[in-house]
Amino acid sequence: MKTVAVVGGTHGNEFSGIYLLRKWQQQPERIARNSFTTQTVFANPKAFEENKRYLDVDLNRQFGLDDLNNPALANYEQSRAKVINQQLGPKGNAKTDYIIDLHNTTSNMGPTLILLQTDAFNRQLGAYVKARMPEAVVVLEDQTSVEEHLFLSSITPQGVIVEVGPQSQSVLRQDVLDWMETMTQHILDFIELHNTDAVPELPASYEAFKYEETLKLPEDEHGERIGMVHRNVQDADFKPLRPGDPIYTLFDGTEVCWEGDYEAYPHFINEAAYYDNNLAMSLARKVTVEV
Amino acid sequence: MKTVAVVGGTHGNEFSGIYLLRKWQQQPERIARNSFTTQTVFANPKAFEENKRYLDVDLNRQFGLDDLNNPALANYEQSRAKVINQQLGPKGNAKTDYIIDLHNTTSNMGPTLILLQTDAFNRQLGAYVKARMPEAVVVLEDQTSVEEHLFLSSITPQGVIVEVGPQSQSVLRQDVLDWMETMTQHILDFIELHNTDAVPELPASYEAFKYEETLKLPEDEHGERIGMVHRNVQDADFKPLRPGDPIYTLFDGTEVCWEGDYEAYPHFINEAAYYDNNLAMSLARKVTVEV
Repeated sequence: MKTVAVVGGTHGNEFSGIYLLRKWQQQPERIARNSFTTQTVFANPKAFEENKRYLDVDLNRQFGLDDLNNPALANYEQSRAKVINQQLGPKGNAKTDYIIDLHNTTSNMGPTLILLQTDAFNRQLGAYVKARMPEAVVVLEDQTSVEEHLFLSSITPQGVIVEVGPQSQSVLRQDVLDWMETMTQHILDFIELHNTDAVPELPASYEAFKYEETLKLPEDEHGERIGMVHRNVQDADFKPLRPGDPIYTLFDGTEVCWEGDYEAYPHFINEAAYYDNNLAMSLARKVTVEV
Repeated sequence: MKTVAVVGGTHGNEFSGIYLLRKWQQQPERIARNSFTTQTVFANPKAFEENKRYLDVDLNRQFGLDDLNNPALANYEQSRAKVINQQLGPKGNAKTDYIIDLHNTTSNMGPTLILLQTDAFNRQLGAYVKARMPEAVVVLEDQTSVEEHLFLSSITPQGVIVEVGPQSQSVLRQDVLDWMETMTQHILDFIELHNTDAVPELPASYEAFKYEETLKLPEDEHGERIGMVHRNVQDADFKPLRPGDPIYTLFDGTEVCWEGDYEAYPHFINEAAYYDNNLAMSLARKVTVEV
């Protein structure tokens, strides 16, 4: 891997990545490594100026191949996606080898590394980051191929999402900023070790969370929200949720229990940005990744 | 007191009050009492629709007498302020006796009752709420007269702000919602007891936090932020901050210590909404309120 891009501000009100880019422009040695070049990309500066996640549509869902090639999709984020795809891609034949896309969540997810595939490189990367940062959580979103993903980090054949919280939108927390920088450094270190055939011995396996499904908030027949995440589940990201456990409280006081048939691990619980679509949380299954 | 107004959605992305108003429209008996009438007011519905704190200006700073009487101030919130002032006021000669204005904060303030004056009624109210809700915190913002305050709740000669967090903007947490409803119920109960000369015996005194000053985030000469709230202070609302304690971390890693000369109690720490003005936190002094 010869060319790496670190992307911040894909969502304009997720401040950690945006401020880290500023810091690294002052101190470029922090993200420089010998075996590759590192560039930084500020993905959605206009959304940051307006202190919003996006102006027209979620930028991090605009990187499907058909959409990138459809000139009729011309709003601000659709246009930004095409520009970023030209700059780092194009998807399918990218001039960049690796993208690290930096995100915040309002959910209590800690420092989370989202892997989009589970080939040997990614399995080792997860092991390396977890070995050096025990508080890190690895989530696998390999339910679809990288090409089929709509994420910015799907422009390149390899890439990750660094997702750190809890942090309110439009706020900068030092703990969250430090976690994000530390995780990014470990990823860059791992690429350097990989490039120089110097990856150290890694644990034989580790625990990760494989995306399974997304749950909606309770709605009435008109699509109006009639309930909220149950207080037992709030902030309990990556804690087990078992069939029959309370999951929602309706505004009339009724408790709703989860009717699933497996031990689930909720995350992105009550994420502010997902309210647009009345989403309550994502569920994962706990898996063991063999390195 | 014969007429009470409970106001929600003064800020459009503070969801707890907005959803409580909906709940109480379904179950009006929850806010009804025998000795007074209770109405609900949804202060900024358009900001809620757009999922923003406000469209043009902060509605909760538009209730100065001069501004209310200045027809040139005509943007959305300035207009809403005039309408609400007509509906509940007018300020100085209000047809409503009492306003409870419901707010959320992204800061870790728990259920906070903000009193705007410290006459016998308010001193007793604070004692009553704290006696029934030990987790409640009382903040005194009596540094200016009610008439000089710019808050919505300054329309009436008596009124309070219920301020509950931590809750991200545009999110609904069950714990925060429950705290807000519980505190509102206690306030309504106290007015009922006051009206019927039935206020029970109260503790002789209690602890409260008197507003002292507001601190800005570190800025460079161009007004650009160059630092953030120190990790020791983050989430430590109403915990003592002493002269010499670290208070900010600059992006270059430098720790900045507080140079005050008293034992301060920070609150509204790293509140998302205050970033517009680069505010870092408010400071209070701990005081004893004699009932």
